[in-house]
Parts: sequence; structure tokens; C-alpha cells
Amino acid sequence: MTAMEFSLPVRVYMEDTDAGGIVYYVNYLKFMERARTEFMRQLGFGKDWIFSHDLMFVVRDVAVRYRRPARLDDALSATARVLRIGGASLLLQQAVRRGDDELASAEVGLACVARDGVRPRRLPQEMLTALRAVQGDNHQGEPA
Amino acid sequence: MTAMEFSLPVRVYMEDTDAGGIVYYVNYLKFMERARTEFMRQLGFGKDWIFSHDLMFVVRDVAVRYRRPARLDDALSATARVLRIGGASLLLQQAVRRGDDELASAEVGLACVARDGVRPRRLPQEMLTALRAVQGDNHQGEPA
Amino acid sequence: MTAMEFSLPVRVYMEDTDAGGIVYYVNYLKFMERARTEFMRQLGFGKDWIFSHDLMFVVRDVAVRYRRPARLDDALSATARVLRIGGASLLLQQAVRRGDDELASAEVGLACVARDGVRPRRLPQEMLTALRAVQGDNHQGEPA
Amino acid sequence: MTAMEFSLPVRVYMEDTDAGGIVYYVNYLKFMERARTEFMRQLGFGKDWIFSHDLMFVVRDVAVRYRRPARLDDALSATARVLRIGGASLLLQQAVRRGDDELASAEVGLACVARDGVRPRRLPQEMLTALRAVQGDNHQGEPA
Repeated sequence: MTAMEFSLPVRVYMEDTDAGGIVYYVNYLKFMERARTEFMRQLGFGKDWIFSHDLMFVVRDVAVRYRRPARLDDALSATARVLRIGGASLLLQQAVRRGDDELASAEVGLACVARDGVRPRRLPQEMLTALRAVQGDNHQGEPA
Repeated sequence: MTAMEFSLPVRVYMEDTDAGGIVYYVNYLKFMERARTEFMRQLGFGKDWIFSHDLMFVVRDVAVRYRRPARLDDALSATARVLRIGGASLLLQQAVRRGDDELASAEVGLACVARDGVRPRRLPQEMLTALRAVQGDNHQGEPA
Repeated sequence: MTAMEFSLPVRVYMEDTDAGGIVYYVNYLKFMERARTEFMRQLGFGKDWIFSHDLMFVVRDVAVRYRRPARLDDALSATARVLRIGGASLLLQQAVRRGDDELASAEVGLACVARDGVRPRRLPQEMLTALRAVQGDNHQGEPA
Repeated sequence: MTAMEFSLPVRVYMEDTDAGGIVYYVNYLKFMERARTEFMRQLGFGKDWIFSHDLMFVVRDVAVRYRRPARLDDALSATARVLRIGGASLLLQQAVRRGDDELASAEVGLACVARDGVRPRRLPQEMLTALRAVQGDNHQGEPA
């Protein structure tokens, strides 16, 4: 079984574009974060759940590959799926697509920390269970 | 004596533009905020001073008029000067210029509040004195 | 009959917030532009229609009033309705609300220009007809 | 001889922050682009030179590592230096620092294309010469 992919529709507005007439490359990361947020919300881990558990996810590293530009008014989808689950970290595979065309893809490494933004926190058991359920069997070795 | 105008150089980068090939109109407000911040810092009221006095300025209203577009790589100046000083508020006249060309102008109304973001706070005497000194005699009636 | 109000759901993501813990005040203008764009699209005037008629709308002036802050994860609505229709211009009333709470409101003045961004263009008859239909009878005097 | 590093002062304003009270991680990429732009300008390749040669640089991939957060009002420096020069591409090492503290670092891969944004273009000889001069001897093998 492969990992389940979450997908969020994203419309391109003027705010997202640049003088090249295309989506400003930095903004794909915003689309991907929207998808991550809704993915976690759908799993039951919206802001209230996360904050009430004194957690926060911070981005540790991002590697993005840009393939094709998106343009004003495009109807895109931003996706997220779980690549690897660590004790206090999470690696997601994300993409921005227009139809079947992959415009940009990224691996996004997140650390789970206390809300002070500093101390690492283990992913709660409830979250681990839910993330593993959507991860399928594309486990890439042991938790990091 | 007219009010002293503070001016901050601003360079236009790709991040500031939109698919129209010009500076995205919303971003002039960012340029103006940078100018306000440096204006206050020059008067002695940088972030540390303001926070240590349990103050914060919040924007209450903005009226902007757009005249001419700025373009990628333009060397602009963003300006600020005091229009009116109230007990717990401040009205600034701001502009974005390219040379002598005024590209956009705005009146920006700020409220002085406690750092909880809610309770109004009177402008401290030291700030009043400094602001009046640069306001010149273009007082428009009584403090609001 | 009052003017019809168009409303677009907007979710607040991290990208929209600032260090005050609230939505960065400049970003309400982005929410409002999304609503304008979808409002025009619903009336039949999406990007393709507008561009194929060699038209473009540019913002001439904006007056915003901020009342209450929006916060991370809020489910907001951004609204638009027609206040005044001119020969080559349009005045919209817009707001950002959380439930019944109006967080920010604005009057946004748009000019209709050729795609060179300079020459004014009259609103096409088809657009005039559609805009008047949703304007109801809150005409504020003659077209500007 | 090591590669020369270009450094641009960057001040953190409210527009750059998020509800975590720190610089929104996406915005480091903007700081880095500002540094790239000024780096190229200093070498003699400002927008006018680049456009008059029918060139454009597009970002092909970015890998960022976040180490420590920047905060409101921080005085940062954004840096750029040449890692590798290809026939129609360029790999830069970039960082954002506060004093000696590296807050974020990135490798940014750029492709040189015609201004249609599609056809690859070889780096002009004049640009190659200038880039090699600041690259020092940290050549990492052959041009890609």
C-alpha cells in the first residue's frame, strides 16, 4: 500500500505572482504550508489540538525543485504525504500541480518542539498512530 | 516652519512585483511601514524603547492614493511625517517616490496601545516632545 | 433592493500573520482582492474574459478601517459589493468578517484601463449590465 | 584562495515576521534573493545589463537549512557566493546571519534562460569572467 496523498485546491491570485508574469517561486512554499496545515487538520490535529498539547512544528529544512511555472488564475493543487516519521520529527513530500503536471516538488523536514519554540517534543502517540495510518508501507527504514 | 519629512531609500526586488510587471499595490504599505519604523527609531523610539514602555502602535486606518507604478529595480524613497498628534494616536502622512515623482501617498492612522494590543495608552511625554519637534507648525487643530 | 454582497471564505495561515500574533494588517487587502477576483469571475468576467477584451483593473485608491484583529487559523469571509459604477471606474465596498464580526472594511476604487496599464477604457456594456444588476438601487448619484 | 562572499545588510520589519514571533521561514528566501541581486549588480550585471542581453535567471532548486530564528528588528546580513558555474547555470551558496550566527543557509541553483523564460542561454563570456574572478579556487569539478 502506498502512502495516502492529501490534496488542497489553490487558486493563483495577483498577490502570488511576480514581474516575470508567473507565480513567484518563493510562494510555492506558502501553498505547500497551506496543504500541510489542512492535512494535519483533517487527521484531527488542527491548531487547537496542537497548541493544547504544547506543541509546535517548525521547518528545519526544505529542498524544492521547480519544474514549470504557474500563472495568474491557475487552479492548482498543493499536496502532502508522509515520507518518514521520527521521534520528534516528520519528513513530508509535497508538490504543487496543475492537473497532472507537477510544477514544483519539495521535501520538507519538520521538527516537533514545545511552544517555547526550543525544546524538542516527541510526537504524541495519537499523532504517531494517525500519521502511520496514512503513511502506508513506504517506510524508509527506521524512524530518524 | 513646515514638518520635517523622514525619508528611507527602498529598492524594488522581485518579491515586490506582480504579474502586471509593476510593484504589487499592496506592497507600498510595507515600504511605508519600513519608513515609519526607521523614522521612530531615528527619534529614539526603536523597538526596545517602545516595548520597554509597554507600548505598541497598531494601524487603525489607511487611505492610499496610487498615482504611478514603480517597477523592478527602481530606487525609491519611502517617507513619513507627522500630520497630527493625539493623546493616544498619531496621524502620519506618507509617500513613496521615485526621484521627484510621487508614486503613492497615504494617510496612516496609528493607535498607541498596551502590548496586550487592546488597552489604549497615552503617548509618553518624551515621545510627544520629540514628535512635536519634528511636526513643525503644521498642527491641524487640537490633538484628536 | 439593496446591493448583493459576494462573500468568499478565507482561512488564515501562518503566511498571513505577524509577530503581533495576528493577521498582518496589510494582508487584509490580499483577502479583499481574492474576493473581488471571485466576484468578477462569478459575474462571468474571469481573467480570460477581461484579458480578451484588452482590459485590466488597477487600484486607484483604498481606504481601510481596521476594527478587530484576525488570528491564526480563523475562518473568515471576505466580501465585495458594488458601491458606484463609473464610465471607466468602479467603487467597491469590501469587508473581512469573522462570523458577524466585521474585522476590517474598505472602499476600493478601481480604474479600468487597457492592458498597457495606461489608457483608460470604458467598462464594456456587458459588464455594466451585470454590475448594475447586482448593485441594486443603492446608486449613489450619477456614475463618476 | 577562497571564494569572495558578498554581504547585504537586511533589517527585519513587521512584514517579515509571523505569529511565532519570528521571521517567517519562507521570507529568508526573499532576503537571499535581495543579496543575489545586489551581488550581480556589484559585478556589473544589474537588471538593465541582464535584460539588454535577453537573459533572465530562474530558480531551479533551493535547499535551505534553518538553524536559529531571526526576530523583529534584527539587523541581519544576507550573503551570496559562487559555488559552481555551469554553461547555462549557476550554483550559489547563501546564508542569513546575525553577527557571526548563521540563522539559515541555502544552496540555490539558477538557470540562465532567454527572457521568454524557456530557452536556455549560455552565460555571456563577460559574466563568466567576472563570476570566476570572485569564485576563487573553490571550483567543484567541471562546469555542470
